[in-house]
Amino acid sequence: PSGPARRWAATAAANELFKPLDNFVPRHNGQLHSADRDEMLATVGVDTIDELIDQTVPDAIRNHRTLSVGEAMTESEALANLKKMMSSNALNQNHIGMGYYGTRVPYVILRNILENPGWYTQYTPYQAEIAQGRLESLLNFQTMICDLTGMDVANASLLDEATAAAEAMAMCFSVGRSKRKEFFVSELVHPQTIALIKTRAEGFGIDVKVGDHTSYSPSKNTCGVLVQYPATDGTIVDYDKTIADTHAAGAKIIFAADLLSLSMLKPPGEMGADFVLGSAQRFGVPMGYGGPHAAFFATKDDMKRLMPGRIIGISRDAHGNPALRMALQTREQHIRRDKATSNICTAQALLANMAAMYGVYHGPEGVKAIARRANGFAQVFAAAASQMGYKVNSSLFFDTVRLDFASVGEADAVFKSFADNKINVRRFSESSITIAFDESHSKDSINALLKCMASVGPGNGMTPDVDSLAASVTSGIDGSSFARTSSFMQHAVFNQYHTEHELLRYLHRLQAKDLSLVHSMISLGSCTMKLNSTSEMIPVTWPEICEPHPFTPQEQLPGYQAMFDSLEKDLADITGFHSVSLQPNSGAQGEYTGLMVIKKYHQSRGDDHRDVCIIPKSAHGTNPASAKMCGMTIVPIDSDEKGNIDIAQLRAKAEQHKDRLAAAMVTYPSTHGVFEDSIKEFCDIIHENGGQVYMDGANMNAQVGLCSPGEIGADVCHLNLHKTFCIPHGGGGPGMGPIGVAEQLAPFLPSHDVIPFRGENETSAMGAVSAAPYGSSAILPISWMFIKMMGSQGLKEATEAAILNANYMMKRLESGFPILYRGERGRCAHEFIVDLRPFKASCGVTESDVAKRLQDYGFHSPTMSWPVAGTLMIEPTESETKAELDRFCDAMLMIREEIRAVEEGRIDRNNNPLKNAPHTAKMVMGSEWPHPYSREEGAFPASWVQGSKFWPTTGRIDDVYGDRNLCTCLDVETYAADQEEEQKRAVAA
Amino acid sequence: PSGPARRWAATAAANELFKPLDNFVPRHNGQLHSADRDEMLATVGVDTIDELIDQTVPDAIRNHRTLSVGEAMTESEALANLKKMMSSNALNQNHIGMGYYGTRVPYVILRNILENPGWYTQYTPYQAEIAQGRLESLLNFQTMICDLTGMDVANASLLDEATAAAEAMAMCFSVGRSKRKEFFVSELVHPQTIALIKTRAEGFGIDVKVGDHTSYSPSKNTCGVLVQYPATDGTIVDYDKTIADTHAAGAKIIFAADLLSLSMLKPPGEMGADFVLGSAQRFGVPMGYGGPHAAFFATKDDMKRLMPGRIIGISRDAHGNPALRMALQTREQHIRRDKATSNICTAQALLANMAAMYGVYHGPEGVKAIARRANGFAQVFAAAASQMGYKVNSSLFFDTVRLDFASVGEADAVFKSFADNKINVRRFSESSITIAFDESHSKDSINALLKCMASVGPGNGMTPDVDSLAASVTSGIDGSSFARTSSFMQHAVFNQYHTEHELLRYLHRLQAKDLSLVHSMISLGSCTMKLNSTSEMIPVTWPEICEPHPFTPQEQLPGYQAMFDSLEKDLADITGFHSVSLQPNSGAQGEYTGLMVIKKYHQSRGDDHRDVCIIPKSAHGTNPASAKMCGMTIVPIDSDEKGNIDIAQLRAKAEQHKDRLAAAMVTYPSTHGVFEDSIKEFCDIIHENGGQVYMDGANMNAQVGLCSPGEIGADVCHLNLHKTFCIPHGGGGPGMGPIGVAEQLAPFLPSHDVIPFRGENETSAMGAVSAAPYGSSAILPISWMFIKMMGSQGLKEATEAAILNANYMMKRLESGFPILYRGERGRCAHEFIVDLRPFKASCGVTESDVAKRLQDYGFHSPTMSWPVAGTLMIEPTESETKAELDRFCDAMLMIREEIRAVEEGRIDRNNNPLKNAPHTAKMVMGSEWPHPYSREEGAFPASWVQGSKFWPTTGRIDDVYGDRNLCTCLDVETYAADQEEEQKRAVAA
Repeated sequence: PSGPARRWAATAAANELFKPLDNFVPRHNGQLHSADRDEMLATVGVDTIDELIDQTVPDAIRNHRTLSVGEAMTESEALANLKKMMSSNALNQNHIGMGYYGTRVPYVILRNILENPGWYTQYTPYQAEIAQGRLESLLNFQTMICDLTGMDVANASLLDEATAAAEAMAMCFSVGRSKRKEFFVSELVHPQTIALIKTRAEGFGIDVKVGDHTSYSPSKNTCGVLVQYPATDGTIVDYDKTIADTHAAGAKIIFAADLLSLSMLKPPGEMGADFVLGSAQRFGVPMGYGGPHAAFFATKDDMKRLMPGRIIGISRDAHGNPALRMALQTREQHIRRDKATSNICTAQALLANMAAMYGVYHGPEGVKAIARRANGFAQVFAAAASQMGYKVNSSLFFDTVRLDFASVGEADAVFKSFADNKINVRRFSESSITIAFDESHSKDSINALLKCMASVGPGNGMTPDVDSLAASVTSGIDGSSFARTSSFMQHAVFNQYHTEHELLRYLHRLQAKDLSLVHSMISLGSCTMKLNSTSEMIPVTWPEICEPHPFTPQEQLPGYQAMFDSLEKDLADITGFHSVSLQPNSGAQGEYTGLMVIKKYHQSRGDDHRDVCIIPKSAHGTNPASAKMCGMTIVPIDSDEKGNIDIAQLRAKAEQHKDRLAAAMVTYPSTHGVFEDSIKEFCDIIHENGGQVYMDGANMNAQVGLCSPGEIGADVCHLNLHKTFCIPHGGGGPGMGPIGVAEQLAPFLPSHDVIPFRGENETSAMGAVSAAPYGSSAILPISWMFIKMMGSQGLKEATEAAILNANYMMKRLESGFPILYRGERGRCAHEFIVDLRPFKASCGVTESDVAKRLQDYGFHSPTMSWPVAGTLMIEPTESETKAELDRFCDAMLMIREEIRAVEEGRIDRNNNPLKNAPHTAKMVMGSEWPHPYSREEGAFPASWVQGSKFWPTTGRIDDVYGDRNLCTCLDVETYAADQEEEQKRAVAA
Repeated sequence: PSGPARRWAATAAANELFKPLDNFVPRHNGQLHSADRDEMLATVGVDTIDELIDQTVPDAIRNHRTLSVGEAMTESEALANLKKMMSSNALNQNHIGMGYYGTRVPYVILRNILENPGWYTQYTPYQAEIAQGRLESLLNFQTMICDLTGMDVANASLLDEATAAAEAMAMCFSVGRSKRKEFFVSELVHPQTIALIKTRAEGFGIDVKVGDHTSYSPSKNTCGVLVQYPATDGTIVDYDKTIADTHAAGAKIIFAADLLSLSMLKPPGEMGADFVLGSAQRFGVPMGYGGPHAAFFATKDDMKRLMPGRIIGISRDAHGNPALRMALQTREQHIRRDKATSNICTAQALLANMAAMYGVYHGPEGVKAIARRANGFAQVFAAAASQMGYKVNSSLFFDTVRLDFASVGEADAVFKSFADNKINVRRFSESSITIAFDESHSKDSINALLKCMASVGPGNGMTPDVDSLAASVTSGIDGSSFARTSSFMQHAVFNQYHTEHELLRYLHRLQAKDLSLVHSMISLGSCTMKLNSTSEMIPVTWPEICEPHPFTPQEQLPGYQAMFDSLEKDLADITGFHSVSLQPNSGAQGEYTGLMVIKKYHQSRGDDHRDVCIIPKSAHGTNPASAKMCGMTIVPIDSDEKGNIDIAQLRAKAEQHKDRLAAAMVTYPSTHGVFEDSIKEFCDIIHENGGQVYMDGANMNAQVGLCSPGEIGADVCHLNLHKTFCIPHGGGGPGMGPIGVAEQLAPFLPSHDVIPFRGENETSAMGAVSAAPYGSSAILPISWMFIKMMGSQGLKEATEAAILNANYMMKRLESGFPILYRGERGRCAHEFIVDLRPFKASCGVTESDVAKRLQDYGFHSPTMSWPVAGTLMIEPTESETKAELDRFCDAMLMIREEIRAVEEGRIDRNNNPLKNAPHTAKMVMGSEWPHPYSREEGAFPASWVQGSKFWPTTGRIDDVYGDRNLCTCLDVETYAADQEEEQKRAVAA
């Protein structure tokens, strides 16, 4: 078959005629549907794809079965099916609150960020020179968070408020040198946060106390205290005494805070908080039935180097100009491994960017107006409720009003009246209800609430006149000790892009600085940067998908439930497992969840003592970090000289620890990009010694349809949906890390305190790992669409294409570069490692020089120095054509010739295109050109660059300088000056 | 008020609280809602906006009334209202055909072109150096059209198939030196085309004969013959004899053809056609209840210089490299004025780009597969109908099947059965029905049709098995003399971007070459390049808006009707007129319509002899062209030395021609950007002499809310909705040109033959001017949204802001440049003219040098040499902030200093930054730099460019070379080589 119009599989003529022609498979795996396939096979040296797969995947693990996904739907069919399914979701009026609120996404941000592949297909900004756009936006996010919270430093987002709180707890524990074992949580913290704190505490051995903060006395055993501000029931609580007591005891005080409220309320930083965290969701990010959104995390200056997650910092480039980068990358999982207190890796960059731009567009006055309006709605509602005879528990609230009832029956009646009228509120307790207000509400919302309340409960049949109340109510906060007096967001960036044209241009100016998949392939080994197709992305912004509150009663969202069921079933089929949990919202989260499930399994069998986790040294740093967080003891295993796991050593260690063996973690194909033949033996050894096998699913893109973790013998595996299953990387998140498990582990999969969806397994479950029951639900349709549009055959074919692409590139590049590891039969899996260490030895050229030089050719570097220092790991994925692979290989081979010139002494070792890379426009335009090669050789080294050049906007960035002089948000003056310089009115010449 | 969160008008506190905060007005007119306003007023030298307006707009015409649009809706309110309105549209199964067909817009094209401001906010590519992206895409369009039609040359789109046919008729008439007065149209041409041909023929005095082509004998009086291929009833007709006879008579033969069918059918070019035209709608452009879509127009090489519309040609740049540009710009309205045979100006660039990319994505094989499938559906349906006892009129059809009935009653019954089941088909005649098939249909569509047919008419209760029919039917075309044997679209561009990643990158590569509103202000005088907000654009791709067929029975689309009513009412209010027609789909079309309405009015009064049209010489070239097309005699009027219309001369001419005076055309404010005080006198003089006043609405952006054409005294006026009312320019279309008329003219507004929506005025109406009853209906919601989100006050405020912006810029620039014309009190209207002629005299610097030099500063040039040669006309619009105006003024003033250096002999007259502009990256990177200024001064002349540079991708383009060596589509070899070079695999160094 050739040409995109042909279906990938031959079908009968009749079927052929009636089938729509918008087949997705040839749009995704293009090279297998064109003449390129045969050319590539010839280069690789095989006659058929099957022959290549036979040489690549060990026969012992091939499953030779057809997936149960079914026949591929075309793009329009899949969208029509999903639309129909999702249309059954009810979009009731929502007042649930609890950290999730309606928000108006400014349309200019919706379309130009969330719906724009120029923003959503970017990778994490490790290559800072071609990522200054989103680095600036994320710095804006950090600056906004510091300002609103009143803290010194903030990171560039965490997964959700609950995990942010757990991270804060871990930091408190770490600061207390793991000796202070008690952590106190106010009972007025959101319940999903309390649940997650409990889960996380278990691994660290922290004793969590939950209770009334006014009666808790911190001691020398207390590492930290967590409070909610405003409290989960809406009231604004005075924590002054708690703060003082906590500090007096030498412990840390953590505020989980509502970001919008901080524009009206005194910020925790001004009260002495050590940590302030929360969700930036209501800053223009849809609730999405749970996510994704960006959590924020801020702390004091003296703790910034312990802060988890990604931090954007200011450094300088090779020319001495200021430039942004991710700071402190050497912290945490990158080096700490078994000493880690966090396994955080993925952030929520795309959503943090949306929230930051919401701040940029509205500015401080706009944010305040939105806050005051929500507060005004709550005030009007409370006044009306009081008039009607309802009891409002407090006059001090921001946006959430709590009604207390004389009896459970009365509360029942009112709650039922709301439900009957399709209004969702929160049943705070048996005898109380809370009602939250936000930007999305209108006068009609209040009247609808009041109508429900008129004839039941204490309602006396009256419906107050909200207009007159609106004219008379006051904020309740102004003039109180809680009123914010300090200014915030005074920087130029928050005060100059308030028209749509200005914001539109700012968005596009930033976008133009960042290389993404709209420019060229991003062949990051182990990151699987594949096509994120438009049809996969379209549903994300459907109202039925992005509007529901995560704690909406499940029966109101049958569409979501059906999609979850369908996706879980397909993922279970693909992984060969019994059950799937969609809750973990990153790969690292998935690892943690999988290990905790194993732990619970052992406990259920009375094997509480099993706490040893075997992990190969070649594993991703999150593996040991996750094991550590589960309280496991890590036993490392070496690789042999071929890069494979030393099975003899594994056997010895497993037997040595057989009484304590809990688990082993293994990545498959290996992090070296090889299908190791020994994998079944690996699993057998672990099982024989009482352990469970955790398979890291990062490399699942080499397995789908050919073999599966379950059939290989693993017991649990996480899936990076943002790798194998097409969720875009978003410039550094969102990710999603569901796990699949074998039958014996199914009872222990995560549950949820607020939405106890696990049914009979609710008690055996390990607890919650995300704030929302299904993690970042709103992006799951992306993976659903991908799976359905590929079908069983298309999925398998994608894996074959990914393996073909990698082997084709390896063949082309082996003429210039040593290839580090290969399988038994000389093949790589879906990725391979190019060894650059010989060039450092021969002529001083490093992997970093090559990575930066690739930018001059218009490419993002492959994964650098991981898993082996001094190398590049290349993963093309299946969705790149031969033409694009060739262009990348050509660039690499041209760079090889540039290296040769250095090796042979034809050009200076320290002044050559590699050492000076990347070349900016400003650089090649200088009147001075003190280099022994031409400007054109510097910046236009390949013909395609002449047709369409992507310009790095800064010279090579100085990492050491940035880490030494850590600066994570700019002061108002510097920032304003910088902005002005960057953009406006200045006059040159 | 300040800050975007404040509403523009103070409202009572209660209202304030309940109002949503997403007010659009401050996002659009930002400067009036910030401290910038006062700074700008101070610069202009007034204390208040009112003072400025008083000095600008003559008091005699100020209306001082409030528009009736009402209070502004916020962005979300307006969208919710429109959604609710449009949700009442029924989306019935459609088989109407008649030139409009369902199509699947590839999602990657939908999102990355139609929903992408980087593509839709571009201007017509007059500045070719910063427009190579869409020029390449439009060249692809022309190439695809030439290939499919088998013709030599094609243009880059016309408004719709019917107007394209009328243009062809005009060309035939012109080629026949206006002496051959007869034009024959086959009765098998689509009826909307026949209607439009009749309208247009009137002005030229052409005698249109409609009839059976087999019985028509062309004579020496015949200028052309128009046939439809396939015919409007679906049959494929053999026109060989007609072609031979027509040519024998010395006349031209025109084919109106279905583009998709040409992938299966022998192309008209191979049969000897002189013109082939039609619609490219079904190439991935939604029907949109009438448009916009791109019509195509192709002819033979020897007629290319007579071809109407925009033509993309290949030329070379200053460095000798090939480069694209709009060719032959000096034709037609630009110079011919009163000798014009066409007033075509706006094209349908955005839609032509979509259609071209559809061809690029599907390639020749994909296009053929889509065609074969539609044909297969028709064959299966025809076979099934025959089985059931229906009479199929012909076995030779492409996608449309005609059923003939024994009686009208039988036809009635079947038609009713379809209607009852929500299926729209075409009642071809009293006793026949046609049913058309397209890409959007499924097996279910056929079964639904058959079900309706089973129990009525000849239906015998059986429902044939379509699966078995699908396996047995043949195309009916293969093997016949109509089968296409020649290949097409063999160029590389149509055969290499078949995966989504490849197309995505191609789209973004092209986009990156083009400057649009996402980069900087485009201050094109008389073109009103204002904000096209996201909320305005969102509805365009709603299914309820973009899916309906234009000939859907009106009662099925109450949402559209309500929107039309609302928009007509508001536009009538804004213009001060009695009635509005939404049918004309470009400004020029509006002019033509308005003049024809005037003509009909005179005729209704027995004044058939009134045929003189007075037009100032400063008018846009479309004015005389339109008048000419209406058969009017043009009497020109001079301007006085202040640029104003010479009223004494006007009076003299009007009196001189008072017996024949039909109309006068006037632009207001004038094309010189001045509110002429004499406008009322102008109108009075015309009226006193029996004429009607046509006001050109191009400058309506200076009137809205302050004065109105109707109140000033005009009788008719067109509105460029793509200027004043926010429809984006789309890189050269779509446009929309509704007209408003005074009460006496209302009976004569356009009607429509297929959808006779004018009711009682159907007979008095002037006829049709567009193929669809409401023109390009799908983009009317853009203007509706704008009007509703601005409200009465916001609209007026926008006009004030536009006037303030222009006067502010004029003040800033007058220090460096002579300002050509001003009003009586020293103010300009919403635009002004900077005179550059003195510099040509002093140092040889031309307006073109300044225009090209602006590109180096990141700006698109203002309107160049129109209406006065050697000048730039600047129109900032209201939606640009002071910061952006300042940046542009800074650029102009820096350029002034560069000019001074030449004037003062400090730099070479022929080798300076102005003469060498624009500077490409390749140029400043050359090892050679033979210029007396630095590279940086060449390409980075201002600080903002250093932060974010937009690079022109070619050097200055040689217009003369391109016109001399006209080449409008590349041959396969050149093109393939070019593509290859541009993009892939090549190796440098």
